[in-house]
Amino acid sequence: MTVADRSWAEKFAARTRGGVGGGLASILALAGDKKAIPFAGGFPDPSTFPEHELTDLVRGIIDANDSSALQYAPTGGLPGPLDYISGRLGANEGRTPTDGELMITSGTIEALELAGKAFLDPGDLVMVEAPTYLGAIMAFKSFQADLEALPMDEGGLQIEALEASLADGRIPKLLYTIPDHQNPGGVSLVADRRERLVELARRYGFVIVEDVAYRELSFHGATGACLWALGPDVVVQAGTFSKLFFPGVRLGWAAGPPEIVSQLVLAKQNTDQCAGALGQRLLEDYGRRGLLDRQIELSCELYRQRCDLMLAALGEHMPNGVSWTRPRGGFFSWVTLPPGLDAAELAVVAQSRGVTFVPGAPFFPDGRGADNLRLSYSRVEDHLISEGVRRLAAVIEEATGRSRGGES
Amino acid sequence: MTVADRSWAEKFAARTRGGVGGGLASILALAGDKKAIPFAGGFPDPSTFPEHELTDLVRGIIDANDSSALQYAPTGGLPGPLDYISGRLGANEGRTPTDGELMITSGTIEALELAGKAFLDPGDLVMVEAPTYLGAIMAFKSFQADLEALPMDEGGLQIEALEASLADGRIPKLLYTIPDHQNPGGVSLVADRRERLVELARRYGFVIVEDVAYRELSFHGATGACLWALGPDVVVQAGTFSKLFFPGVRLGWAAGPPEIVSQLVLAKQNTDQCAGALGQRLLEDYGRRGLLDRQIELSCELYRQRCDLMLAALGEHMPNGVSWTRPRGGFFSWVTLPPGLDAAELAVVAQSRGVTFVPGAPFFPDGRGADNLRLSYSRVEDHLISEGVRRLAAVIEEATGRSRGGES
Repeated sequence: MTVADRSWAEKFAARTRGGVGGGLASILALAGDKKAIPFAGGFPDPSTFPEHELTDLVRGIIDANDSSALQYAPTGGLPGPLDYISGRLGANEGRTPTDGELMITSGTIEALELAGKAFLDPGDLVMVEAPTYLGAIMAFKSFQADLEALPMDEGGLQIEALEASLADGRIPKLLYTIPDHQNPGGVSLVADRRERLVELARRYGFVIVEDVAYRELSFHGATGACLWALGPDVVVQAGTFSKLFFPGVRLGWAAGPPEIVSQLVLAKQNTDQCAGALGQRLLEDYGRRGLLDRQIELSCELYRQRCDLMLAALGEHMPNGVSWTRPRGGFFSWVTLPPGLDAAELAVVAQSRGVTFVPGAPFFPDGRGADNLRLSYSRVEDHLISEGVRRLAAVIEEATGRSRGGES
Repeated sequence: MTVADRSWAEKFAARTRGGVGGGLASILALAGDKKAIPFAGGFPDPSTFPEHELTDLVRGIIDANDSSALQYAPTGGLPGPLDYISGRLGANEGRTPTDGELMITSGTIEALELAGKAFLDPGDLVMVEAPTYLGAIMAFKSFQADLEALPMDEGGLQIEALEASLADGRIPKLLYTIPDHQNPGGVSLVADRRERLVELARRYGFVIVEDVAYRELSFHGATGACLWALGPDVVVQAGTFSKLFFPGVRLGWAAGPPEIVSQLVLAKQNTDQCAGALGQRLLEDYGRRGLLDRQIELSCELYRQRCDLMLAALGEHMPNGVSWTRPRGGFFSWVTLPPGLDAAELAVVAQSRGVTFVPGAPFFPDGRGADNLRLSYSRVEDHLISEGVRRLAAVIEEATGRSRGGES
């Protein structure tokens, strides 16, 4: 029997049959189109990466004879980098993690995997915003959780809808939210809803998983207290350095109740055992020299400029009936098309015209989103933004015309 | 309600109640004892790490303006590093992976996690050698698999025992084996058993997960063809660069049938999305300069010397009734104590005398191993090996005396 003869699919686990992963694959394919104007992938711009400092940082670590940078690290993280991240949280969020409240992860995706490993049996209820980060949908579905989609508006997650579900007896194990410059929504949770959300978690006994991937990429000041600082007893905060330092380092953190963090650390023994020690030490030294904060400042300027250019172009080019969110940070604006249009079909046409975006459906756990699309301005050079939006607007206008024609 | 008031344990997933993880935690605690002579952890020696080359490698990557080294990588790996690893397998194993047969992982632990995600539903049967790598036991137990322990001898896994189980209708989904310089056994699978094992996998339709962590750390030439080269249709090979390059880079590979590898890549979208791009590029450039092969040569010399010193010391100091394996590669010798002794108790006494080792029980999935222990010579400086073994022999001798006294 040869490789080609046998099919292993029948042996694959039940969790593989949830249709998980196709959405991301198609996005990566779109993001890989080097010729198009790329409103697709949510990648940070390479111009923000610390290329010029890296050699010097590595030399410093080697010269210090610190062999811990090359060895296996403790599963929860090296002491120095943990101390640095802890101090950062204290300075930025007004709360310093106490013993056992902080660990270093290999990024937010891994933190979600660890939360799933720690909490989720098949059929457990997880609540998410809709739309939301599709990596989170994939992660929770891979644990065969039931996902309930909560509605959002310009002020973020609609707390009344959550309250209604809870009052109906639908109590999740986990509630996943991106309170700041949400992916893909481009909106932030308003202050009073933050307090109410934490109170609900306390009252009903569920864990809030707070994804702060875009929190520090805020263009006009802070969005509000982070949920973890408001409710360290009920919140696990998952952060990433992919957008602040660089993605190729695979580093993030999780902060939460010690009992939960220790369970996440146990789970991490089975994912990759530890985050890369070299990356941990690079981050620490870069941060302690003040370079991380400087990079974040410059990144905010860059992305704010691109966001402004995109919003101006949308206002100039988009036909009537198209609406979009007005981000104050992060990478994304969320576009709603006139009724009857299918963003997945438009994505194909748009790509042939040299502009890519991600259609909305993969950001919903329940098949909605056909008339939505996500635009990312993070990696589009300034001078291409208006032209990209113009091309996209033309594609939408043509389709709207055909759609109206079809109705008549 | 405060952090201290609430317990989340009742919300944790069923998989967390398998007692997974305690073994590794105690080993890491032993390995962290800086004062003792360390026969415990299976860490590579820092003197093998490429400290002096790292700065230059990073500079080369930055100077080449290769921003892919800092960006997100494709989930299966960057093209250049994949090409390098593929060429290496071709040169070393006589078989070059074809399209879709190879991916880059964040290490062997992650490869096992991915295999579990792809294949294992609760109650599925996984066969392992006993004793075996406890990270593998933890990984498979975390998927609530049933583990069947197959016996080993000086020639590795006993194929007759496997045949008997299969003939009895116990067909695993996965069979996990470390054919070369096994952890913790210190033995290798003899050539004819390799062929028979692959034939059985074909006949009964199970997947062999081949862990080659120590394969290239062979002191006296190769051990035999790797299982993947013998059976690329039924074998997933999991390799790691932790012992060949350095652990702080978190890099490995998986090679297997394309249908399985593509499922592992899907699963990796949920663990860490991609292995660190910077590490991938460092490995590639280091390897292409011939430095990796040179490092492996020097590592083999270092570990062979230490192994020889340990075997000599064991012969000189150990009391009658103690036996041990004679490794021809890798990091470990596996010791069997006289009946009635408890290695876990001895470990406590030994640590108080300044020598650490790992007791045998965690390496079995079924509670055996009380009269076994694992000695690692990989990170013990040459001049301490004999003294460490002498101390350990004294502890065993005293306990044997007490044990005999108790019997009389």
